[in-house]
Parts: sequence; structure tokens; C-alpha cells
Amino acid sequence: MSELKGACVFGQSGGPTSVINASAAGVFQEALKQGCITKVYGAAHGIKGVLDEKLYDIEKEDFSELELLKTTPSSALGSVRYKLKSAEDDETDYKRLLEVFKKYGVRYFFYNGGNDSMDTCNKISKYMLKAGYECRVMGVPKTIDNDLWGTDHCPGYGSAAKYIATSTMEVYQDARVYDRGTITILEIMGRNAGWLTAAASLAASRGAGPDLIYLPEMAFDLDNYLQRVSDIYKKNNYVIIAASEGIMDKDGKYISEYGSDLAKMKDSFGHSQLGGLAATLADITKQSTGAKVRAIEFSLLQRCAAHLGSKTDVDEAYLAGQMAVRYAVEGKTDYMVAFEREEGAAYKCNIRLVKLDDVANKEKKIPREWINEEGTGMNEQYLRYAFPLVQGESRPPFENGLPRFAKLKKVLASI
Amino acid sequence: MSELKGACVFGQSGGPTSVINASAAGVFQEALKQGCITKVYGAAHGIKGVLDEKLYDIEKEDFSELELLKTTPSSALGSVRYKLKSAEDDETDYKRLLEVFKKYGVRYFFYNGGNDSMDTCNKISKYMLKAGYECRVMGVPKTIDNDLWGTDHCPGYGSAAKYIATSTMEVYQDARVYDRGTITILEIMGRNAGWLTAAASLAASRGAGPDLIYLPEMAFDLDNYLQRVSDIYKKNNYVIIAASEGIMDKDGKYISEYGSDLAKMKDSFGHSQLGGLAATLADITKQSTGAKVRAIEFSLLQRCAAHLGSKTDVDEAYLAGQMAVRYAVEGKTDYMVAFEREEGAAYKCNIRLVKLDDVANKEKKIPREWINEEGTGMNEQYLRYAFPLVQGESRPPFENGLPRFAKLKKVLASI
Repeated sequence: MSELKGACVFGQSGGPTSVINASAAGVFQEALKQGCITKVYGAAHGIKGVLDEKLYDIEKEDFSELELLKTTPSSALGSVRYKLKSAEDDETDYKRLLEVFKKYGVRYFFYNGGNDSMDTCNKISKYMLKAGYECRVMGVPKTIDNDLWGTDHCPGYGSAAKYIATSTMEVYQDARVYDRGTITILEIMGRNAGWLTAAASLAASRGAGPDLIYLPEMAFDLDNYLQRVSDIYKKNNYVIIAASEGIMDKDGKYISEYGSDLAKMKDSFGHSQLGGLAATLADITKQSTGAKVRAIEFSLLQRCAAHLGSKTDVDEAYLAGQMAVRYAVEGKTDYMVAFEREEGAAYKCNIRLVKLDDVANKEKKIPREWINEEGTGMNEQYLRYAFPLVQGESRPPFENGLPRFAKLKKVLASI
Repeated sequence: MSELKGACVFGQSGGPTSVINASAAGVFQEALKQGCITKVYGAAHGIKGVLDEKLYDIEKEDFSELELLKTTPSSALGSVRYKLKSAEDDETDYKRLLEVFKKYGVRYFFYNGGNDSMDTCNKISKYMLKAGYECRVMGVPKTIDNDLWGTDHCPGYGSAAKYIATSTMEVYQDARVYDRGTITILEIMGRNAGWLTAAASLAASRGAGPDLIYLPEMAFDLDNYLQRVSDIYKKNNYVIIAASEGIMDKDGKYISEYGSDLAKMKDSFGHSQLGGLAATLADITKQSTGAKVRAIEFSLLQRCAAHLGSKTDVDEAYLAGQMAVRYAVEGKTDYMVAFEREEGAAYKCNIRLVKLDDVANKEKKIPREWINEEGTGMNEQYLRYAFPLVQGESRPPFENGLPRFAKLKKVLASI
């Protein structure tokens, strides 16, 4: 493959993670080293920054700040949720992208995101090919949800899992200090796939985690749940439940929506707590058991806690960005960088490339055989999968007691 | 003062913190070294463990596990909220305590807690004196609320403040990734005193914190709040608000209780989110501004996150326990160990003793002059006070990716 000289653009898309900036560091530092890459741009708010011609000139950034990106959570360039229409239906955006690519001499496009973002990559790649404009397009995987197809796991998941497991262990200590019994419900992110909630089982495997784990992969039965909670409460005096925000009953109704029906039915406990899953489930559980029930949402904290990153995850996120650049320079296009785990007892992941066509818009859920028979916890297969992903501790440097995150100058490129 | 030979009992009381076990380590390790202390007991669930004769024999514990207490959150012995009646009204508990003290030869009593616990200490000390039973009683301060009188600050506060400031900085990164504006409301613990919420200003001083901070020390005016939020939102597109759970209006009504009135008034946004302060305020803010509003509660996480402890706090918590023992052995009784800050630019705190009489049941609030004129943020005086308390990073050892907390055998003593 002949050398392709030109500029590169990198964009961040979808929900941020605590390591998406580590991938940015990987792309930028590698791209700045490559002779054939003439300019390195970061797009403000993903694809929208390209459409709006808001491209930051990365050469203007201090090297030390790019280095700090490795431990800076969230999307330093800004993110976006923007789904490109199909080019057959509406060519407007594509024409504009081509125009901007030509104006800035862009020959490399790297996009960091989840399912939707891989779809964006795929569409752009196909359009440029059709338009006869040579541009190498590579997807860099990212999502705390861990639901991308074609890769063993996704950068972002390991750090979120480490945060969830650690915080669950800490809450476990706290939730049993009084001799009065308590029931604690942890609400964990994951609308369709239960990977994040499953991570609470890492804490359970240390004897300091939830008694019951509920994933969106399994239909949730309220009566069965209340019976189990009541049994454990009577026996142990304490119950901890970890539940995905997206759990549904067998009719496909979200449990978080049970609250509105409930409010009509009852008034005995004063306030009805509508809103999130944990609050709704806490309300129902309180009424059923009479126990003290506490609802805790890990909320955004689970996806931005760079102070408790997995070193493995941060290193792999960086590597994914770096390898995307190397492969593109070698001539590859239309792929997502993915991880493939080697067989054997020791954890080792190799980089492989997956066609964007095979990844876009698919969703990977937890295999049934990794969930226990009752559907209320994870088994050894999941633990074997997940423990290697949370190894090692990463955190930003602390200055005067608080983390020091990267500060980018964000100088807009002008041509 | 003549040497007093006998056993010691240590108990933990009130809401746990991430460093209350560090004080336990200080008491235990020091007591085990002292020749005049013949036995070292840990009371299960504070004073209740003494009444119930549930005393753990600390000599049966491994030294390495006692060492791990320094970085193990929550109350390893179990805590309690139990307020002793005045001995004049009801002597039952006191007689029982004396009975147990005599039976186990207890001559030293150390109690780790907040205002109420210092009251307990004080009452016990006075009763024993009156009964002619020599027993040295020392209070060890603890509370994330930082509202104990007679001490510069309380062990537990520095770590909670570090967690709150760090998590706020991380949420700040996350809450502004999309170009669509958002308003984020952080609910922070503190029913009567705003010390914990004030810690969010440490993040603000780094340019990554809340725009507005609301403390229970200041009457909350909803119209003024909504005007400020709306102004900042229009100007910056993003607003972050940190509010104490305990903020009230000028009539003394909790803002968290505004929800029930609200629910009667409106139905335009579907679900009304009753319950916590953040959810209520988010609901009101959403209706007023039409913006996307997210409510985040730091919940228990802010008081048990030993993975992000302040090293200064952990060391001081240990020291407080250790010094309580040394002073008692020297003959002191009826005191709480306190911290006194030296004048000067460099932070240095010395241990001093405060009479329990002067501490019990008092509450220290934030001085008005540390809050900005508008009542919406902290000024330099608070920052100078708080920054030294969050210095240094403490965390438990990590084993296979997760924290390793102390596991006590908890062997019940029998006599």
C-alpha cells in the first residue's frame, strides 16, 4: 500500500468514559510521530465539529497536557450524539464532510465511540469511497456499557467495573454498621446490557457484595424478588441488591415505571419516590418488608471516576488509539480496532481488526450461561472474564490534594 | 497520678466515616503496648455492646488486620445511635455499665463519635465518679459533618471533603461534554452544618466546580436561586449547583419538602420526583428553565470512600486514638482529644484536650464571614482552612484489582 500523505481528524462520540481521553492521547501522540500525517486535528463535539468546521490544532497543545489526557475523565474535545442519515436518503451531511475533508486535506479519520459511532464511521468510509476521495477511516472502541460486538471487551468497561466493585465493597461495609437491619439497593447503568451491574459480583466474590443481582438480560419478576429479599432479610438482617437501570418484567415494562402505578395505589408511606429504578424499587421493597431501605445511584460517578481507573483499561484504551493510527498509516481502512483474548490461564489480549460493517449497530449482551441458574447473580465464567480487566490502579497526578486534569488550549485551526 | 491497672474498652458510635477505623487502630495498637492496660476490648455496636456484654477480645486479632483498619472504611466493630438517659431520670443503663465494667475489670473507656457520643462519654464519666469507681474516660472525635465544638476539625472530614471535591471535579468534566446545555445538582450530606457541601468549593477553586453552593447556614430563597441559575445557564450553557441536604427557607421549611406541594400543583412533566433534596430541586429547576437537569446524590459514598482518603486525615485519626490512650494512661479523664491549629503559613495541628462538658451536644457551624456575600459560595478563608485537610492520598492495599479491607475475627471475650 502506497504512503498516503494528509491530515488526520480524531473525534469523540457518545457517552464519555473515564478512559476515552486515554484513546485520544494514543491517537494524538502516535499521529504526531507519523511523517505521512501532516496535521493532527481534534474535532469539537465529534462529527458535529467536522460539519461546523471546529477543528482544534493538536500541534498547538503542550506535550505534558496530552500526556495528562491518559488520566483525565470524560471527553476533552466534547462529545455528541448525532446519527448520520443514510446517504441514500440525504446526502447533505456527507457533502459537507467531503468539503471539509478536502479543505483541510484530511486523509485519516479516527472516531472513538460505541455502536452508533461505528455506524457513523462505516457510512463516512463508504461515502468517501464512492466519491472517489481517498480517506482511511478507523473506529476506536469505547463504551462503559461493554456491548460492542467483535471485541472481547471495550475500553472504559474495566475502569467502570473497578469503580462499581470497589464502591460496592465500601457501601457493604457501611450498610451493616447498625444492629437494626437495612436493605440497600444499588442502581447501576446499563439500559439493555447488564455488563456494568454484573461487575458488582466482583465485590460479592470477595464476600462484600450484593446478595442479589438483576440484569436486563433476564425478565424481572417482582413477586419472586420480594420473596427472596424477605427471606435474606429475615435470615441475615441485611440485604444488598444491585440492579441495572434497565430491568424489565416479562411483558417488557421497565420496573422504573412501576412507580406511577404504585402512586395511584398507595399512600401509606407518605411520599412516593418516583423517578429512578432504585427509588422505585426501594419504595416497593419498603412497603413489602417494612424494613429500612436505602436507594443509591452510582449515576455519572461510575463513568467519570478517573481517580479509580483500571491500569489495564487505561493502557488498552491508549493502545487502541495508537494502533488505529498505525494500521491506518499501513493502509488499513474501514475497520474497528478490537481486542482478542488469548486462550490460557494468564490474561493476554491482542489487537485485531474487525470490519465496521460487522460491528455497526449490533449489541453484545451477557451470555445466559454466565448468569446463575436463579438469574440473581454471576458465576465463575463471568468472574474469570472480568477480573483481568480491573487489574492495576490508575489515577491522575494529585496537586495540592486534588487531581490535576489535562487543560487543552483548543486552538481552532484556520485555513 | 498513680498507675491505674485494668482493662480498656473502645467503642464506635454514630454514622461511620472512612477513617473511624483508623482511630480504632490507634487505640488498639497503643493500648496493646501499655503495660498497665491488662486487656483490650472492642465493644460491638458501641455502648450497646457494653450493655449487652458483647466485647471482642482484641488480643485475638492478627496484627496485620489491625494495621489494615487504617484504610478500612465504616465501623468495623459496628456502630450505634443510642442516647443514654440522664442518670437522674433513669439509672438502669448506668448500673448495668458499672456491673459490666466491674466484671471485666474495665478502668479505661474510649468512645469514638460525634456530639451525642461525647455526651455519652460525659455522662458515663460523671456516673462512675459518683459511684466511686475509678475509670478514665476519653472521647475520640469523629464525624464527616465536622461540627464538633472545641476542635479545629474532626477526623473523617478531610477524607469526605477530598472525595466530594474530587468527584465534583470529575462530574464537572462529564457534565459539559455535549453542546446541549445541562444543569447538574449535587446533593451533599449535612443536615444542619454545611461543612461537607462547602468542600465542593475546593473543586471550584480549581476551575472545575459548582457555580453555586447552598449551605444550611443560609436561608434558601427559591426565586433568587432560580434567577441565578437561569442567568448562568443563559450565559454559559452549563450550571453546576452543590446543595446541602438540609437547606431550608427563611421559614425553616426544608427545601426537600417542597416536593409534596409541588406534586399537587403540577403535572406537566409527568413524574414528580419526590424524595431527596436534589431530586426535588431538579424537578423545580427543570420546570422553571426547561433545561436538561440531572440530580446526583453522593449518598453513602461520601462517607465510606476509603479508596480516596486524605492521608492527613487518616494519620490524624490514628493519632487521635493513640493520644487518647496515652493521656488516659497518664491520668487524664473526662476529656475529648482535639486538634488545635498553629498560627502561620504552614499547616501544623497539635493535640489538645477539651473537657467533655464543653463539647457535649454543641454544634459548630460555618462562620458567616467564610461564605461569600451573596451566600452562594465559599471565600478564601474557607479554602485556607480546608486545603490542608485534604493533603496526601490514602487508600487500602489492592489485591487482584480490588481493595483489601481488614477482616476481624471478633472473638467474644468471656469471663
